[in-house]
Amino acid sequence: MSGGAIQDRYPDVTAHCYGCGRLNDHGLHVRSFWDGSEAVCDFTPAPHHLAFPGFVYGGLLASLIDCHAIGTAAAAAGQAEGRSPDAVLRYVTGSLRVDYLKPTPIGTTLRVRGRAKEIGPRKVVVEAWVEANGVVTARGEVVAVRMPDEMMQRLLAGS
Amino acid sequence: MSGGAIQDRYPDVTAHCYGCGRLNDHGLHVRSFWDGSEAVCDFTPAPHHLAFPGFVYGGLLASLIDCHAIGTAAAAAGQAEGRSPDAVLRYVTGSLRVDYLKPTPIGTTLRVRGRAKEIGPRKVVVEAWVEANGVVTARGEVVAVRMPDEMMQRLLAGS
Repeated sequence: MSGGAIQDRYPDVTAHCYGCGRLNDHGLHVRSFWDGSEAVCDFTPAPHHLAFPGFVYGGLLASLIDCHAIGTAAAAAGQAEGRSPDAVLRYVTGSLRVDYLKPTPIGTTLRVRGRAKEIGPRKVVVEAWVEANGVVTARGEVVAVRMPDEMMQRLLAGS
Repeated sequence: MSGGAIQDRYPDVTAHCYGCGRLNDHGLHVRSFWDGSEAVCDFTPAPHHLAFPGFVYGGLLASLIDCHAIGTAAAAAGQAEGRSPDAVLRYVTGSLRVDYLKPTPIGTTLRVRGRAKEIGPRKVVVEAWVEANGVVTARGEVVAVRMPDEMMQRLLAGS
């Protein structure tokens, strides 16, 4: 794991995400760490992140998979292009799919893993999965789309 | 629209969901209303539910689609079985897919619509979509699985 979380290197203007933005005071603060071949995120749901008593809310799992996969895409594509980890790429979510395999227990730290299946010039397909106490409880696939230059320029311009 | 929100008729022991549970003090409180053929939910994201400045977080949209589709499944299957709306069925999410068609602006009330595509004895497939200012910004599909009796019994027993 090198240089802290992927999301901590996002440009400030793209660091307000409710799921993973370090500048969102009310957010989940998903943080993903790249080990050279996959990304790992540990996350402990709050007691109110319930689906039913004892189990984690599926929408939260979808959010973890989403933000973790976007970070995975950035790290994997950056590595494929020979970029410095500090020059992190920025992706947005084109599509998200989650299969809920079994109920996810609450009260334990979840591990989310992500890996790039396909890296293209514009899109990265990421598979990600959630483990609770070593058991995979949900599997996801995200199509991550590189943020268009004009979107970044508009964000930088504040309009 | 008859008899209030679908989620307001969930049994207490299944009403703690972070997305739609009336008994979750910290939750989103998604509320879906059935009109006999589809369900409608209006939701206003909080200012911190950001993806980027000006746009709604995709994980929130996934959560809205998830909970709204589960409510849609309950209403549609209950109607197909000739049940009273008060004897609401309870479903869980088997899978969730969301296609993000365009950025969803923040600062406006979103409308989420849902419709059952297929109703089976154990599963309902629901299509749902998010509209912002009349424009569809995200489309989802949820496979809703009827809560197994033993799960309901365990929840009722508090174990």
